[in-house]
Amino acid sequence: MAISSKNAKPAPKSTLTAVELEAQVRAQLAASNPDALRPLLNGAHPADIAEMMDRLGHADRHQVFSLLPPALGAKVLDEMSIEPTRQVLDQLSDADAARLLELLPMDEVGEIVTEDVPHRRQALLALLSPGKAQAVNALLAYPPKSAGRMMTEKFATANPEMTVTETLAHLRQVHPDVETLTDIYVVNHEEQLVGVVSLREVVVAAPDQPLAALMNTHLVTVAPETGREEVARLVSHYDYLALPVVTPDRRVLGIVPVDDVIDTLVAEGTEDILRFGGMEGGPAIDQPYFTVPVPLVIRKRVGWLLLLFLAETLTGTVLRSFEGELAKVVALSFFIPLLIGTGGNTGAQTVSTLIRGLALGEIQMRDIWRVIQRELLSGLLLGLLLGAVAFVRSLMWGTTTELALVVALSILAICTWANTIGALIPLIAHRFKIDPAVVSAPLITTLVDATGLAIYLLIAKLILHI
Amino acid sequence: MAISSKNAKPAPKSTLTAVELEAQVRAQLAASNPDALRPLLNGAHPADIAEMMDRLGHADRHQVFSLLPPALGAKVLDEMSIEPTRQVLDQLSDADAARLLELLPMDEVGEIVTEDVPHRRQALLALLSPGKAQAVNALLAYPPKSAGRMMTEKFATANPEMTVTETLAHLRQVHPDVETLTDIYVVNHEEQLVGVVSLREVVVAAPDQPLAALMNTHLVTVAPETGREEVARLVSHYDYLALPVVTPDRRVLGIVPVDDVIDTLVAEGTEDILRFGGMEGGPAIDQPYFTVPVPLVIRKRVGWLLLLFLAETLTGTVLRSFEGELAKVVALSFFIPLLIGTGGNTGAQTVSTLIRGLALGEIQMRDIWRVIQRELLSGLLLGLLLGAVAFVRSLMWGTTTELALVVALSILAICTWANTIGALIPLIAHRFKIDPAVVSAPLITTLVDATGLAIYLLIAKLILHI
Repeated sequence: MAISSKNAKPAPKSTLTAVELEAQVRAQLAASNPDALRPLLNGAHPADIAEMMDRLGHADRHQVFSLLPPALGAKVLDEMSIEPTRQVLDQLSDADAARLLELLPMDEVGEIVTEDVPHRRQALLALLSPGKAQAVNALLAYPPKSAGRMMTEKFATANPEMTVTETLAHLRQVHPDVETLTDIYVVNHEEQLVGVVSLREVVVAAPDQPLAALMNTHLVTVAPETGREEVARLVSHYDYLALPVVTPDRRVLGIVPVDDVIDTLVAEGTEDILRFGGMEGGPAIDQPYFTVPVPLVIRKRVGWLLLLFLAETLTGTVLRSFEGELAKVVALSFFIPLLIGTGGNTGAQTVSTLIRGLALGEIQMRDIWRVIQRELLSGLLLGLLLGAVAFVRSLMWGTTTELALVVALSILAICTWANTIGALIPLIAHRFKIDPAVVSAPLITTLVDATGLAIYLLIAKLILHI
Repeated sequence: MAISSKNAKPAPKSTLTAVELEAQVRAQLAASNPDALRPLLNGAHPADIAEMMDRLGHADRHQVFSLLPPALGAKVLDEMSIEPTRQVLDQLSDADAARLLELLPMDEVGEIVTEDVPHRRQALLALLSPGKAQAVNALLAYPPKSAGRMMTEKFATANPEMTVTETLAHLRQVHPDVETLTDIYVVNHEEQLVGVVSLREVVVAAPDQPLAALMNTHLVTVAPETGREEVARLVSHYDYLALPVVTPDRRVLGIVPVDDVIDTLVAEGTEDILRFGGMEGGPAIDQPYFTVPVPLVIRKRVGWLLLLFLAETLTGTVLRSFEGELAKVVALSFFIPLLIGTGGNTGAQTVSTLIRGLALGEIQMRDIWRVIQRELLSGLLLGLLLGAVAFVRSLMWGTTTELALVVALSILAICTWANTIGALIPLIAHRFKIDPAVVSAPLITTLVDATGLAIYLLIAKLILHI
């Protein structure tokens, strides 16, 4: 595919990673030679500078930031974590901070004035240019985690009568600073979106063709209120590089670029882990680990724990109703944690499998009976295997053959039960439009505990005749 | 930003969703009017046709596929699930199937001949054009889940001496079919990568500028052996739309586009849920839910379950060593599941918080003491709250004050312990370069069970003087 060139160019330099950059920056700072840092910083990627800034101490960070030219400084700010961003901005006057924000896309400004420096929101917005301030205020009126909050105003528009040549000239004049320009949004004289054309299509088309002949009029758009999960799903489904956000009368408010979608996917993926671990969702959960105050952590955790605790007291009720049997055969109680633990573990495996299958669309509601049959069979087979091991292990402990049989049969029954219920509950949640990821490992463990105990003690009563 | 246009265009049509498309397709098939489907299908997005195809029955699917023009058929095939793809291809002769594969990027061909129709791999590759077959064979020599397996040959190159005008002419002639052209890879006469320039930068630059003056020479590249997680991390860190895959002497083998990275993130995110749920990773886990044979599911699940089962037998050992105490106060056993369950739930919450913090880079190894202090404090506070509730709840059950006190103090100790150990274990895993997501909820539950029991029974012994 390549075209020959006669004079070879020097080999390209690899970008310094954040860690390499940090080492060099620390060395120069230690040598009190900050000016030597300028060329180093100007050649680095903003994302790497930001990662390094996150690792530096307060004083070093401020010194390094002061060496960055404003355009680079804004990009670095955009990529830094909350705490370092707040510290850097709090060293700047309102006027200097606002000058940096002016250079950032509106979604980033919105994020900074709500999350990083909420105490300076009014002051900073008042110092922005009227157009920018209005755009940011409009954006902040949309709900958190919506498309409206994720959109940027940095996109290019053109109109359908423009030819390819006119469009390219227009881009050079009007939109030279649109950094992630991959698509051109074609709007009519009422600023309504009528089509999209990729820059590639414009570049390879005949110079006198109008955009109307090139543009795609089958458009996928979202409303500003659309949730970020749905935005991510659409971008991932259609392999888009950006998604336009439009009003009901189809005026383009902004676009959500694919890199914001990637951030969303990373955030949502790790949130699913949190929920599966039994953490309540919500704003506090979204913040970086160390920035959430401990009292808020407690408030967010204790709800689920209390609910599970109360559900778990059912196990006490079950055990009390078998008080006589437990008093007669104390050895019965030795197996309680083992049996209910194995049930919980089996159930957690099944729930995680179902959460994944539902998330990837591999399992549909119409498959419910196939799923249950499959998990019933898996549970039965796992129960047979583990039951056999439990039987041998019990005998090795010197348990009577009858009790070993009780344990083995209980494992068989509990594994089958846990596997089936572990499949059923995420399916029911999905049916009622509840995200199956809220069916946490603790929830399934708790459910299986009380029922598993009842199964165990009933089998014991039957076989041991107590 | 928009430019006025005098004659307004008709409002754009929204793309039909897969569900709407399915309804219309089923209606036309029921009316035995398949030809009416052609315009409908040609106007739909390939991703939506693929989703609909996944839902159709075998016969309908084949009929609809036969109506698609080859270019659209190839795109649809690319997006369909494994089972439907296999069924559609198995209805086609080797020659017809190979003609479709010829239209697909090499990474998709590689995926289809290894995962969807492995039994026809030799036959289909033999019928591809020599260049394509060679590219696919080279790709398949790289390890699964590597950059080499994800890369596509559909990218545009140019050389550094070419001016903007020459580059645009070159793109029109040589690369008119590169669908996701956003960057141009600048290579020297030895086909070595010397820079990257975005199509946007070319379009807005002065026509007589050479690419050498425009291109970025600080390049982030990956080797074909680089794992897909690292590729995803780099694309997400640098906000790139594609990453070039190069040989050690910097020849470009292909590019990994951002949409493949999104697929990776979705897959990895759901895999973390699986591992946290206590499922073993590996090839079987990657396949869609219904395509994994039950015996393989059992093999993948029983290992962890057995290991946890054996670890859980420790609880039996603990209980047997307190046999005397349990025989004296049978009521002690009523609280066993409640206490260890609460410990497991608390630990699972902490583990999920740590997995997230480590995955997002919010927690570094140097923060280990801060984390432990924080989780010790949280555990203590949660233990105080839950302990108070447990005290009241026990009295309500008619338990003696002494026993209620034992239960309350045990909850306090177990929550503190579970919270601390739940923080420590993911940190240790991270320290030893083990993915913290393998610290599953079942693992932490099992660890907390035996130790929690010992704590409970020791407290009981001390307070009840038994």
